[in-house]
Amino acid sequence: MNFKDKFKKIVKKNNSLVCVGLDPVKEKLPKHLLIKADPFFQFNKEIIDATHDLVCAYKPNSAFYEAEGIKGLKSLEKTCHYLKNKYPEIIIILDAKRADIDSTNLGYIKMAFNFLSVDAITLHPYLGKEAIQPFLDLKEKYFFILCKTSNKGSGEYQNLPVKSGTSRLNLELYKYVAQQVVKKWNKNGNCGLVVGATYPNELKEIRQIAKNLIFLIPGIGAQGGDLKKTIAADKSGQFLINSSRSIIYADSTKKFAEKARTKTRELKNLINKYC
Amino acid sequence: MNFKDKFKKIVKKNNSLVCVGLDPVKEKLPKHLLIKADPFFQFNKEIIDATHDLVCAYKPNSAFYEAEGIKGLKSLEKTCHYLKNKYPEIIIILDAKRADIDSTNLGYIKMAFNFLSVDAITLHPYLGKEAIQPFLDLKEKYFFILCKTSNKGSGEYQNLPVKSGTSRLNLELYKYVAQQVVKKWNKNGNCGLVVGATYPNELKEIRQIAKNLIFLIPGIGAQGGDLKKTIAADKSGQFLINSSRSIIYADSTKKFAEKARTKTRELKNLINKYC
Repeated sequence: MNFKDKFKKIVKKNNSLVCVGLDPVKEKLPKHLLIKADPFFQFNKEIIDATHDLVCAYKPNSAFYEAEGIKGLKSLEKTCHYLKNKYPEIIIILDAKRADIDSTNLGYIKMAFNFLSVDAITLHPYLGKEAIQPFLDLKEKYFFILCKTSNKGSGEYQNLPVKSGTSRLNLELYKYVAQQVVKKWNKNGNCGLVVGATYPNELKEIRQIAKNLIFLIPGIGAQGGDLKKTIAADKSGQFLINSSRSIIYADSTKKFAEKARTKTRELKNLINKYC
Repeated sequence: MNFKDKFKKIVKKNNSLVCVGLDPVKEKLPKHLLIKADPFFQFNKEIIDATHDLVCAYKPNSAFYEAEGIKGLKSLEKTCHYLKNKYPEIIIILDAKRADIDSTNLGYIKMAFNFLSVDAITLHPYLGKEAIQPFLDLKEKYFFILCKTSNKGSGEYQNLPVKSGTSRLNLELYKYVAQQVVKKWNKNGNCGLVVGATYPNELKEIRQIAKNLIFLIPGIGAQGGDLKKTIAADKSGQFLINSSRSIIYADSTKKFAEKARTKTRELKNLINKYC
């Protein structure tokens, strides 16, 4: 099954557009987990078991695992395999923000899709389509291209007016990226965009350009994105709203997973209310 | 010692601006290595031992190790530790092309500098300075920002004319990136640029903008970059010329390391001749 069909199916089944970011940080884990053999995996497993019927996707960010070196990557692998085996209908997005030239990308492809068995990965656009073609050739997978990122300073390049060949108009770079992805990168229908919830106006403009792409929308919660404004800006329902810290660190006692469930349910219901 | 001093010292000691890319691929390794416990490490070790007095740096590209999953990352770690212990004066650049938002980057920082103990890493510019500040705060390390990459299609975004605030002129994005890095990103003197040898004209222009930055220049050899043109375009001597495939796969018999030495010496001498 390709990504878009898998996405539709799980969104319908769980009636949810929530993506939970699995971003473990040793210092933030509930203390009682630290004596476990693999605290990151144990933490993720309990979060997953407590929320799996309320989400459409999980998004582990590679950086949080790389922070623990090879041990951390083993936890990432274990987490992905656990998800794949126990909840195969749920989407896994590897937030790794990769992109190298041409065949070099095959290494990242093997890591993401062979070893971790994820469904999608986030990619930087800077090297151009030709560079990341080996990703785009994988018709069953999905590629979320960074378009307008949630960070405060994302405008430094992304908001620069650029002049494209035929147009007399100046267009901000993030809009040009969205245009290129729609017109040229998405030949296999496997491209989406990353658009931060911290920029609802830009989100609205990008949705005008990219009507049929799935958006990965981070930035709700700890980063300050406003859910109501976000959904008012994009009424398509073709998106995943990611939340990490506000869900997984809602509580640091033995009840952390239960609290994560409450927070996930609240977010799910709010999204459905605003949609 | 900070990166720039370490660079100057090893360039002087070995009289070399050569960076050897350590990019092992299972299918390309000499057959007799495949029975070893860790073929990637064994391959790298023999290349390193045969070339260490002819180079200023080694550049393992993370993707080639990730291609083998966690096993591959162990080979990468072993390679970096071997280099660090046996040839501590030689620079290690982790070519990982990372960049995430703000504190998320701490994970990549720990992997690169705590676990792998490298001296420098390559970074994507798309998220802006504010996002990658945690890298830039590390005064002793060095950050090669992707500016004009060596791939054929790198112009899709990099060559777009952009309009910056005060200037009436349109400037290509890659030049604007170079300008920003010089003016704003390089407060700690720890930024360099990646500029492909496949674009000597652009290299010349970028050197005009970034007179004091160290450039990492890939694209010589297998990718088609011309060494003479490259050095004619940048007479500063403030660069590392990277070659991977033409050196490490020059021979696939038991004499691969010896042949790699010959190729490295040839490249070193040619660079010095043209400089």
